[in-house]
Amino acid sequence: MNFSFTSLGCASALPTVNRFPSAHVLKVRERLFLIDCGEGCQMQLRRYGFSFLKIREIFISHTHGDHIFGIYGLLSTMSMIGRSSDLFIYAPSTFGEILSSLLKHFGGGFNFKVVHIVVKGDEPEKIIDSKSLEVLSFPLKHRGECYGYLFREKMPLKNVFKELVAKNDLTLFEIARLKEGLDVVRESGEVLKNSEFTYLPYLPRSFAYCSDTAPFETLSSYIEGVSLLYHETTFASDLGKLAAQTMHSTASDAAICAKNSNAGKLLIGHFSTRYHDLSIFLNEAREIFSDCEIAEAGKEFIVPLIKP
Amino acid sequence: MNFSFTSLGCASALPTVNRFPSAHVLKVRERLFLIDCGEGCQMQLRRYGFSFLKIREIFISHTHGDHIFGIYGLLSTMSMIGRSSDLFIYAPSTFGEILSSLLKHFGGGFNFKVVHIVVKGDEPEKIIDSKSLEVLSFPLKHRGECYGYLFREKMPLKNVFKELVAKNDLTLFEIARLKEGLDVVRESGEVLKNSEFTYLPYLPRSFAYCSDTAPFETLSSYIEGVSLLYHETTFASDLGKLAAQTMHSTASDAAICAKNSNAGKLLIGHFSTRYHDLSIFLNEAREIFSDCEIAEAGKEFIVPLIKP
Repeated sequence: MNFSFTSLGCASALPTVNRFPSAHVLKVRERLFLIDCGEGCQMQLRRYGFSFLKIREIFISHTHGDHIFGIYGLLSTMSMIGRSSDLFIYAPSTFGEILSSLLKHFGGGFNFKVVHIVVKGDEPEKIIDSKSLEVLSFPLKHRGECYGYLFREKMPLKNVFKELVAKNDLTLFEIARLKEGLDVVRESGEVLKNSEFTYLPYLPRSFAYCSDTAPFETLSSYIEGVSLLYHETTFASDLGKLAAQTMHSTASDAAICAKNSNAGKLLIGHFSTRYHDLSIFLNEAREIFSDCEIAEAGKEFIVPLIKP
Repeated sequence: MNFSFTSLGCASALPTVNRFPSAHVLKVRERLFLIDCGEGCQMQLRRYGFSFLKIREIFISHTHGDHIFGIYGLLSTMSMIGRSSDLFIYAPSTFGEILSSLLKHFGGGFNFKVVHIVVKGDEPEKIIDSKSLEVLSFPLKHRGECYGYLFREKMPLKNVFKELVAKNDLTLFEIARLKEGLDVVRESGEVLKNSEFTYLPYLPRSFAYCSDTAPFETLSSYIEGVSLLYHETTFASDLGKLAAQTMHSTASDAAICAKNSNAGKLLIGHFSTRYHDLSIFLNEAREIFSDCEIAEAGKEFIVPLIKP
């Protein structure tokens, strides 16, 4: 049961030879969620072996070029390789006109529908609710509308202790009720207590994506207890003033967010080209939140299954 | 006196990990002309050390995505690194709306003007006429409006044989006239024949760019005698039928064009992803036109100065 994150690029607005702009893949079981889509995203997807056909949903944080210029090429390529199934793009309202213009000029031959789901709101909102996963959007504070995304596994069905199945001669009906977390009352009046018969096979995992944003207090509450947090940190604290002016976070800001939200692990990316050596980010963040790593392009960060 | 061509990518519509889509640089002296601008163009410009600030003109053959999707990121980056001088984009009329939409959604902070010069016409047309260079556009046959470009150095000023300057006690005025190719008639009636006093320091060099096009007979006449020809060859002859259907050229088509136009050298690129081994293109072309090479990304092809 995969649950892993791979960045396709950790550059900020100015890409370099070795740093592509923001685009990332969250793999949940066999589903691939694409998060932001900077220029070159399609090449990076190929480079790291992600199938375009497994992408059904794209999540756009905001419509600055370094987060969306790859959408033109990606959609065109999806068309050329024969996509026919709908594609769902979750993005702020500002994306609407951009998409219309893309479809008008380049979408003539598309054999699939591109559905723009407008992300909005001053509070977290549930935007996907499937059997095993839910996705929430939450507002960030950047120049223009900007949203983060929280992907959260649902509580799994409980397992019934095998030895108790035989010992108590459980029926299929009783097992099903127990798996759903309910007690069972037999005709005899005997009560099979759920807490005694079952256990959680694993704790639900979660991933939060915080792109360009100024730090703000409520952010950590939106993502409380997240297993893995990716937080963009364009500057280190030496350029804290510039970060504030441009509504970005420093490495310390990201680490404070990770700490306050009780995150399991922090990944940082989206570095300004001013920095050649990224250890300044890592050292700064680790002073506040030790389990922090650079979201190096192509490196898969697996969120392990943890038993309760 | 540089005159060289460097491709930034030799992929066709579907870029791969190692092949970026169409974008190329022609260097003439210190000027850089960007020809087509596929996705990732800005990364490739950086990779191969071309300064964005030296690009004043961009030439777009046609508005299919694999030739223009890099324009969004390139223009944004030019803005972010502080461009203030006008940028001239030579492109078919179909580019107009694409540019308007780009400027509307992403050009808010641009401090430079983007001028679209509409390329058109059923015959070659001179679109740039500078002191030492002229550029002509010429129609190609592809799906939708499509143009090739011919860059041609002007005939240089002639040199006067040094030994004759002293021997004939030439005045500065007489030297200037001779350099311009004129005879000089002295007050005494003596005629200083240009052909005896001067020589051409070098032959003008030229480069032609033929992007996606079906082969057609007049094409070679448009570029007669070109020193270096880049011709896109999406397919080899094994897929000649597909090439015809999609209005592309095969390697043989390109080689025939090079031969008929008496080109000095042929470069081929824009290969379909169907081909992993490019030697099929090279072998096919060389059977017809021997001085042919793959326009490998990043490889500089210098057109040498040739004395008459």
